[in-house]
Amino acid sequence: MPKRVDPDERRQVIAEAVYRVIGDRGWDAVTLRDVARTAGVSMGQVQHYFTTKTDMLIFALTHMHARILARLQQHLAALPQPVTQLEQIRAASRVMLPVDEAGRQEAAVNIAFFSAATAIPEYAEGLREGYARQLAFARAQLTAAAADGLLAEGIDPDREADALYFLIQGLIGPVLIGQLAPEEALDILDHQLSRIFRDGRRR
Amino acid sequence: MPKRVDPDERRQVIAEAVYRVIGDRGWDAVTLRDVARTAGVSMGQVQHYFTTKTDMLIFALTHMHARILARLQQHLAALPQPVTQLEQIRAASRVMLPVDEAGRQEAAVNIAFFSAATAIPEYAEGLREGYARQLAFARAQLTAAAADGLLAEGIDPDREADALYFLIQGLIGPVLIGQLAPEEALDILDHQLSRIFRDGRRR
Repeated sequence: MPKRVDPDERRQVIAEAVYRVIGDRGWDAVTLRDVARTAGVSMGQVQHYFTTKTDMLIFALTHMHARILARLQQHLAALPQPVTQLEQIRAASRVMLPVDEAGRQEAAVNIAFFSAATAIPEYAEGLREGYARQLAFARAQLTAAAADGLLAEGIDPDREADALYFLIQGLIGPVLIGQLAPEEALDILDHQLSRIFRDGRRR
Repeated sequence: MPKRVDPDERRQVIAEAVYRVIGDRGWDAVTLRDVARTAGVSMGQVQHYFTTKTDMLIFALTHMHARILARLQQHLAALPQPVTQLEQIRAASRVMLPVDEAGRQEAAVNIAFFSAATAIPEYAEGLREGYARQLAFARAQLTAAAADGLLAEGIDPDREADALYFLIQGLIGPVLIGQLAPEEALDILDHQLSRIFRDGRRR
C-alpha cells in the first residue's frame, strides 16, 4: 500500500524549503524548481499543491507566522518552573529576535516578504495578519502582568506593549546585518522591561 | 560649448532613478536599462559611472543615507522659531517614518537593500554605516537635551536614544504596509517622548 500523504504536512515541507532558499540565497533564487529540489519533491508535486509561485509564497508567509507562534509557545513551556511573567515576556522577546538559526531564517524571510510587498499587495495583507496576531499576544502578556500588579506605577499596558513590540521589530534588522550583537539588542529590551515592571531588574 | 556634466550630480540623478524603480516596481525590476530609462540617460552613461549593477546599488544606498540626513536638517531648519529640543526630536523622528512620499520611497528602498543583504554582504556594510550615523545623531540630540536639563529624572540619554531610534525603525515597516496609520506610529513615539522629557506632554 502506498504511504498516505498528508497534504498539510506536504505544504509545510515545501514552505520550509522556501525559507531555506530565501535564507541561503535570497528572494531572487526562489523558483518552483529550486524549491522542489530543496524540498526533495518533484516540480509536479509543488505544482499540485500550489498553482503559482505567489500562491506558494503566500502559504509560506502564513505558515511562518504559525511557526513563530509555535516556537514561542515551545520556549515558554520549556522555561524552568516557577516562572515569573517578566521572565516569560523576556523569553518571548528573545524568540522574536534573530539570535539563533531559526530566528535568523524567519527574520530574513520576513524582510524578503516586506520588500516584495511593495509590488504584490497580497504579501502586505499576510504581513499585517501576522503583525496583528503577535501584537495581540504582546498586549495579552502585559495586560496579564498588570492584572497581577506586577507593572510599575503609571504604566499603561497596551501602550507599553505596542512600544515594546515595535522596538523588538526595530531590533531584528540591525541584529540580522550585524550592526547590533544579539546581547546588545537584548540589553536594550531589558532596559525597557526593567522600567515597565515594578521589580524589573535582572537577577 | 557643450554643457559641463558634474559627475557627482549625474550619479545622484541615477541613484534617484534607482529609488523610483524600486519604489514603483520593486527590487526585481532594477536593471541598468530600466534605471537608465527612468533617469532619462543612455545605458552607456549609466555604465560610464557604474561598472556593475551592484556598484550602482551601493552608491544608491550611500546616497540615500545622505539624502535622509539632508532632509532631516532641512525639516529642522524649517521649524518655526523658537523651537524646543523636544520639538526638534519629534520632527526628526517624523522624518524617519514613511509619512510622506519621500519617506515612503526611502523606507521601501531601505527594506529592499535589507532583503538583498542576505545574499550580498556589501549591502549589509552600507546599511550598518547608515544606521551608525543616524543612531549617533539620535544620541547627540538626547545628550544635548540632557545637558540642558530637559530630561525626566533617571533618564539615561544614550540608552533612551537607542530605544527611541530602534523603536522608530520598528515602526517603519508597519506604516509602510498599512498595519499602522502614520498618526498611530507618531502617537506611540509621542508617548515615549512624553516619558523621556521632563515636560514632555504635547501642547
